[in-house]
Amino acid sequence: MAKINQNYSKLPGSYLFAEIGRKVVQYKAEHPNSGVISLGIGDVTRPLAPSVIAALHKATDEMADSATFRGYAPYEGYEFLRTAIAEGDYKSRGTDISPDEIFVSDGAKSDTGNIGDIFDLSCVVAVCDPVYPVYIDSNAMSGRAGDFRDVWDRIVYMPSVSENGFSPSLPDGHVDLIYLCLPNNPTGTTLNRRELKVWVDYACEHGAVILFDAAYEAFITEEDVPHSVFEIDGAKRCAIEFRSFSKTAGFTGLRCGYTVIPRELEIDGVSIHSLWMRRQSTKFNGTAYIVQRAAEAVFSESGRREIGESIAYYLENAGIIRRGLADCGFEVFGGINAPYIWLKTPGGVSSWEFFDRLLSSAEIVGTPGSGFGPSGEGYFRLTAFGSRENTIEALNRIKTRLSF
Amino acid sequence: MAKINQNYSKLPGSYLFAEIGRKVVQYKAEHPNSGVISLGIGDVTRPLAPSVIAALHKATDEMADSATFRGYAPYEGYEFLRTAIAEGDYKSRGTDISPDEIFVSDGAKSDTGNIGDIFDLSCVVAVCDPVYPVYIDSNAMSGRAGDFRDVWDRIVYMPSVSENGFSPSLPDGHVDLIYLCLPNNPTGTTLNRRELKVWVDYACEHGAVILFDAAYEAFITEEDVPHSVFEIDGAKRCAIEFRSFSKTAGFTGLRCGYTVIPRELEIDGVSIHSLWMRRQSTKFNGTAYIVQRAAEAVFSESGRREIGESIAYYLENAGIIRRGLADCGFEVFGGINAPYIWLKTPGGVSSWEFFDRLLSSAEIVGTPGSGFGPSGEGYFRLTAFGSRENTIEALNRIKTRLSF
Repeated sequence: MAKINQNYSKLPGSYLFAEIGRKVVQYKAEHPNSGVISLGIGDVTRPLAPSVIAALHKATDEMADSATFRGYAPYEGYEFLRTAIAEGDYKSRGTDISPDEIFVSDGAKSDTGNIGDIFDLSCVVAVCDPVYPVYIDSNAMSGRAGDFRDVWDRIVYMPSVSENGFSPSLPDGHVDLIYLCLPNNPTGTTLNRRELKVWVDYACEHGAVILFDAAYEAFITEEDVPHSVFEIDGAKRCAIEFRSFSKTAGFTGLRCGYTVIPRELEIDGVSIHSLWMRRQSTKFNGTAYIVQRAAEAVFSESGRREIGESIAYYLENAGIIRRGLADCGFEVFGGINAPYIWLKTPGGVSSWEFFDRLLSSAEIVGTPGSGFGPSGEGYFRLTAFGSRENTIEALNRIKTRLSF
Repeated sequence: MAKINQNYSKLPGSYLFAEIGRKVVQYKAEHPNSGVISLGIGDVTRPLAPSVIAALHKATDEMADSATFRGYAPYEGYEFLRTAIAEGDYKSRGTDISPDEIFVSDGAKSDTGNIGDIFDLSCVVAVCDPVYPVYIDSNAMSGRAGDFRDVWDRIVYMPSVSENGFSPSLPDGHVDLIYLCLPNNPTGTTLNRRELKVWVDYACEHGAVILFDAAYEAFITEEDVPHSVFEIDGAKRCAIEFRSFSKTAGFTGLRCGYTVIPRELEIDGVSIHSLWMRRQSTKFNGTAYIVQRAAEAVFSESGRREIGESIAYYLENAGIIRRGLADCGFEVFGGINAPYIWLKTPGGVSSWEFFDRLLSSAEIVGTPGSGFGPSGEGYFRLTAFGSRENTIEALNRIKTRLSF
């Protein structure tokens, strides 16, 4: 008789955003005239840039004519896009990444979720805590996380909290795979070059691999914050980088991301690049041509200007939230190099209690920090992806309706 | 130190289509004035249907306006598409599949490649031989295939050859997961309702799960051939079905498919539907909105007519190949309910020898049957996806230039 993967049975039942959704639905049912504002889920709201739209229309027309129609795309993505990425995201910042070290995909979530396929199940995984749930859940599904008793007993959690300036300490014990998301979701904080160098040196020395999620790179405003792990010497021998067009260019509903695996990255003489190519060519069939043309347009002169305006818009929202919360006496982090603002709940109330009070008093939805891991307890995430009007209104409500 | 997944090291090195590509490049380099015609890889050549193009343009315009912009799609796909599928592909044929039993994805290759995630690694896998390589390779990567010595020692191969009318016998020993691709790639043959019923009954009796790949369903012309495994009584308790818009509507470069997991399918009381939802929501972030609107357009009245014309065009190619080969004295299979023609190589020559002679004598590229598994040796695949002109010219060359 067929058996299911028993690791799925170990996953804790309720998913963070499902529970939030349930509470919001219940609140709205009980308060039919409510005006709930969501600064919760990390989805963009601004439309695709005109250059991206134009590229989609043009590529769609190519698909209508047998002379220009495109069937299966290369598994690793079209060269036109990989070249644009290598130039626009790396060479332009002085980092030498070759187009053939880039794998285009349908998004960084797929890639961060699937990357575990190519590593041994015995590898010990380290994550920052709090953390984007995909890193842990995907490892739990494959059996690499062990058993769940409040936390997973084979995962090494590295607390990233205000006490250590959101700069976690190196792990005490042995680890093999280190997930770093910088700028960070959910805390909105990041590391500078010197701090990141410590991790790269550690990974090189111990033969660990850094899985570096740079999905929020486009929001970096400070000079000393690296845009890529490959800005750090040695990273090409120990790191894989994930990037996304979702937050950079509003592609959450269009689906495009990419993964960079340097040719130099080897384990026991085996090329990690070739393993991922094998994985992708077996279990993936390329990213839509029209979407790859849309992504290419992000690197055009007009595309860069347009997406820059959207990023600036979201960062201005972040500033409004940061300053507004600080004015109310909250302890606030993030929001300078990221679209996330991470606040310390006042008076020691729990993350979920703060969620309930924010919803009932101010009709604002955010995300309880404890949903991202044990060290998220006592924190709360707000996102800068709302409209300007809603963001300003939300802060006015917090100022006038919330009291602790 | 990090370790790689050692199962990847067991995979045989050369990939079928890569080896074909290498040989073709070499031939063209040695014969600069050659006019090679490819009837090899299974990619479509006709452009997207006008209704699909119109839907893409319309949805793209929606993405340009914040009032109609769509961010993250539901993990399982938009309800508008799942409803169109349930109506158009199932209810219209008298099969009752609910929209909430359907998971939209970026293609059947991703789904057939990833479905193994939710089953235990101890499950014994059975495949027809010859077979679409993804079924075996994806299981080899997870460790379910055992070791490779000419064949994988934990895979149960079920020969599907002219001697048994391409209707494989039920496995002798114990199996848990049974991959069936019908109409079949590569043989182009299929099973009728009575023959498929035998497999459904077997799976229900033994607690096995049938992984039914119906990617070529749109090419079925004969009355007694089931379009879905769910036309067979009992299948909802033992089968998962994979479908694709790639061959149906020319979406190979647009990427959309779907997987049907009936609510009734349970193992030890665990819903397989809920496991797949968990897998998809963790490691996948939905299919592009514009692509889902394009897929919806396939079910419109004009869409159906237009894709019907393309299918008829390819099937006419298939007939030209079938009849032409038969006229030359070849033993030919498939091509009636599928876009693939499977021929027996004459005079006992090997599949690769036939490949070389077809390329050198007639400048035609096809696919050696042995590349799909040991029982494919002595067979050869041609596809109906070429242009009419190339298809006719290819058959003329076979008639006039090839001799055995």
